[in-house]
Amino acid sequence: MSTNTHPFDSAIALVPTGVPGQYQGQSSQDYWNMVGPYGGITAAALVQAMLQHPQCLGDPVSITVNYAAAMGAGRFEIDANPVRTNRSTQHWLLTVKQAAEDGVMQVVTTATAMTALRRQTWSASDAPMPVVKAPAEAERVPALVGAVEWLNRYEMRFVDGMLPMKEDGTERDSLTRLWVRDNPPRPLDFASLAAVSDVFFPRVWLRRAARVPAGTVSITVYFHAGREELAAAGEGLLLAQARGQEFRNGFFDQTAQLWSEAGVMLASSHQIVYYKE
Amino acid sequence: MSTNTHPFDSAIALVPTGVPGQYQGQSSQDYWNMVGPYGGITAAALVQAMLQHPQCLGDPVSITVNYAAAMGAGRFEIDANPVRTNRSTQHWLLTVKQAAEDGVMQVVTTATAMTALRRQTWSASDAPMPVVKAPAEAERVPALVGAVEWLNRYEMRFVDGMLPMKEDGTERDSLTRLWVRDNPPRPLDFASLAAVSDVFFPRVWLRRAARVPAGTVSITVYFHAGREELAAAGEGLLLAQARGQEFRNGFFDQTAQLWSEAGVMLASSHQIVYYKE
Repeated sequence: MSTNTHPFDSAIALVPTGVPGQYQGQSSQDYWNMVGPYGGITAAALVQAMLQHPQCLGDPVSITVNYAAAMGAGRFEIDANPVRTNRSTQHWLLTVKQAAEDGVMQVVTTATAMTALRRQTWSASDAPMPVVKAPAEAERVPALVGAVEWLNRYEMRFVDGMLPMKEDGTERDSLTRLWVRDNPPRPLDFASLAAVSDVFFPRVWLRRAARVPAGTVSITVYFHAGREELAAAGEGLLLAQARGQEFRNGFFDQTAQLWSEAGVMLASSHQIVYYKE
Repeated sequence: MSTNTHPFDSAIALVPTGVPGQYQGQSSQDYWNMVGPYGGITAAALVQAMLQHPQCLGDPVSITVNYAAAMGAGRFEIDANPVRTNRSTQHWLLTVKQAAEDGVMQVVTTATAMTALRRQTWSASDAPMPVVKAPAEAERVPALVGAVEWLNRYEMRFVDGMLPMKEDGTERDSLTRLWVRDNPPRPLDFASLAAVSDVFFPRVWLRRAARVPAGTVSITVYFHAGREELAAAGEGLLLAQARGQEFRNGFFDQTAQLWSEAGVMLASSHQIVYYKE
């Protein structure tokens, strides 16, 4: 592998095992979170598995990824199964498995997805990009010593709702807006758009100004971008916005939107997140 | 079956086939939409399959249902498979199959879901119920001759964004708010909460003031209500709100929220919808 390979491409590299629809990957240390790989990189590997599948029809329109158990270091296997292929749409069931201590393969992640051949139609937006300061005016978050590794894989410039520096338990709203892109920059594609949709720190940390244990249980990404919009976004920064809705008895949900710097919505996303206490 | 059985309960009635996790149901004429059953009732049947499964752990927290192909009249089979059971959470893969013309069973719907044992924690809301007129002040939509049958299964009282009566192609925003409950009233449970999350007519009909062909491809429901909140909601009306975000090249997405009349968020939901032209 060339030393010029982007860490993102290395992280989602998959090798067919020979079983139809089955691919083998390696948990990425470059995208390591606290106890396993960053959830977004797992979502990206699942997108990659579909796109690499010889029967794949069209481009991703939606994916839901469920983090059933903590992924560990080492190898994983993806099974990508196109369970229904229609004229212009295709539905997928996917699982990620890893060997447990006894060597038995166990499900750590499940997913469903839909791909489609899209064509131009009437289009419109009901969620225009908010007016915020330009990327150059938003200070870049410096590389932090001791931070989890995946944070170093993104350039982040917060414009609203950065993580409170002081954990005083003050309640506030849970809106975050930031400019973000891969670090180093890399042309946007479906896999990296899925990955960056999970870039937000847990809303409960902002809402409560307290870093309680929290982890995404399920994320859904709707891809509004086709190939043309991805090409137009290129290596540019994206405006990423997330807001919590309801925090109740151990779980909260979040809605998120991602726009290109030109103001085109590329994806919307939702997730439900476990939190403690 | 008693003649007092609510049509909702008849519609989601499932019989174990003898194969573990497999249940048989019948497409409901009472919830018939244009070319198949109302998508919400299929989501409800999937929730029911999990809750009826002898290994089910806890209550539903999230479900994503993908409408892979049109469901037809007659029998269907649900396979509900708890693929990962942790200490307090459980992850599910589900499929709905129907016999094709040649008798071969084919996948018509896929789903993933998560159930959990929930316990009381710090809770808060960042999406309070909007202030709208009371149910009694919102006129009930009369039963319409020639309307699809499932509409008769809900009491609907629109407060904002009713379907435009005149199809003039005028563009407007895509926000709808309505008070809604089962007709006749029925105590709310997880299955009926999943069903009502799909109650909104396609946002594109409102946005464009034109009824172009449209159908949900994938819906996600996050259950914020536990058993106590469901019991408190009872047979009362829910405030249901939906808004489109991006309409692009044949697909749009929608975010939705459902509150009890007392102002408690019971569920949030998202869907991506196919539309023509």
